[in-house]
Amino acid sequence: MDGFGVIVLAAATGIGGGTIRDLILDQPVFWLHDTSYIYAILCAVLISIFWLNRHENIPRTLLQIADAIGLAFFAVMGVQKALSIGMPDMTAIIMGVLTGCFGGVIRDVLAREIPLLLKGELYAITCIFGGIVYTQTIKLGLATEYVMLLSMASTLFLRLAAMRYNLVLHVFKYPN
Amino acid sequence: MDGFGVIVLAAATGIGGGTIRDLILDQPVFWLHDTSYIYAILCAVLISIFWLNRHENIPRTLLQIADAIGLAFFAVMGVQKALSIGMPDMTAIIMGVLTGCFGGVIRDVLAREIPLLLKGELYAITCIFGGIVYTQTIKLGLATEYVMLLSMASTLFLRLAAMRYNLVLHVFKYPN
Amino acid sequence: MDGFGVIVLAAATGIGGGTIRDLILDQPVFWLHDTSYIYAILCAVLISIFWLNRHENIPRTLLQIADAIGLAFFAVMGVQKALSIGMPDMTAIIMGVLTGCFGGVIRDVLAREIPLLLKGELYAITCIFGGIVYTQTIKLGLATEYVMLLSMASTLFLRLAAMRYNLVLHVFKYPN
Repeated sequence: MDGFGVIVLAAATGIGGGTIRDLILDQPVFWLHDTSYIYAILCAVLISIFWLNRHENIPRTLLQIADAIGLAFFAVMGVQKALSIGMPDMTAIIMGVLTGCFGGVIRDVLAREIPLLLKGELYAITCIFGGIVYTQTIKLGLATEYVMLLSMASTLFLRLAAMRYNLVLHVFKYPN
Repeated sequence: MDGFGVIVLAAATGIGGGTIRDLILDQPVFWLHDTSYIYAILCAVLISIFWLNRHENIPRTLLQIADAIGLAFFAVMGVQKALSIGMPDMTAIIMGVLTGCFGGVIRDVLAREIPLLLKGELYAITCIFGGIVYTQTIKLGLATEYVMLLSMASTLFLRLAAMRYNLVLHVFKYPN
Repeated sequence: MDGFGVIVLAAATGIGGGTIRDLILDQPVFWLHDTSYIYAILCAVLISIFWLNRHENIPRTLLQIADAIGLAFFAVMGVQKALSIGMPDMTAIIMGVLTGCFGGVIRDVLAREIPLLLKGELYAITCIFGGIVYTQTIKLGLATEYVMLLSMASTLFLRLAAMRYNLVLHVFKYPN
């Protein structure tokens, strides 16, 4: 995979989750009026291309950690936005999962990979964990910034732990 | 495929069609405020997992019949919602197809299967048949409940017949 | 691939890009009230099926030219609609890319092909080129019709040139 499609793929991954969140919540899509998001993605892509052209590869672990940070960050933003317009906790948690995971799913579908989401690792469930942390701690009266940090840290921690120790949630006794 | 991804896949299949319908019709997405849909899907998934862990497999025919019932049910809901906000018949029929088939398409794309929709069996066309039955019988002054039942039965009957007798609609004389 | 799924695939390709454009711009989806688009696609599909059943195949080049015309046409419509509701240039260009390319991406994902978009040929970038032509020439005070024609011609010309001379934009020095 070469050429400009890579940039499109990166953009789809970066803004796909938030776009579907805003569509479902019937909010203005976040990058529509504020084009700084688009420029941020362009910068990130240019830096990556520059880096990749100097060094032969990005270490796989680094990519996974970047993916985990994106997952945790987007998941928190999804929960926060849903709650800010008065959605119930359950809906907010699902918006967190959607926002966190959807970009990566678009990327994997377009690149014809099996979505990371479906591979059996703890992935979507880390967003649910972060979403539960968010919706429960906010009720304790903590300031929103602390709740967001705590929730993001929970998601990130669980995801990194899952990667490090190959945590897998078996829901079926017999493999299919 | 194991782990939590299965639940996400089930949820995508269950609410995907209705979500895209509501987005296109510019209606509030149906599961946003009423979280009972989400709980219903969770229950269905838990029952399936419990069942699959006691018995080794679900018979293929049973799965296909469940898929056919879902298809017929969601298709009718799509037509009904589109008509209820004053859409033209043609649009309502297409919303029926979208609502009925889209969930399954998401599932097949994520699981990297060839969508059932494209496999040549009568699939989308059963939703169109049910949609025509709906939009035409409602004009005869029948009560909405009867029209919905009739339309759902038409879709289901045609789909089950297509499965039973391997009905295929050949649109090309020469296979590609 | 045979049967009715082909028609669904054609419809998804034809209206998919414009549908996602209208959803993101929060405009009424264009084919919802005006069903003539749906009839136009049905006619196009029927003509194609008729043609394919008399002749064995459509020459590959003809298909690619049809794809290029669709790309250029939809891209211009995307830019035009975004600007008409007061979006910034950058957003309008991206809506052009989305509208132009998204239908083809849906088609390729459903048919399990590697999206043309990602194959390294100049594809998305031709929409960006057309979008820049549009947003810049409209500022010179040219009539909208001329700007649209000019932008469409730019996209089409660049895409046809890319096809004819196998223009590829290498963004990576080392192939992955």
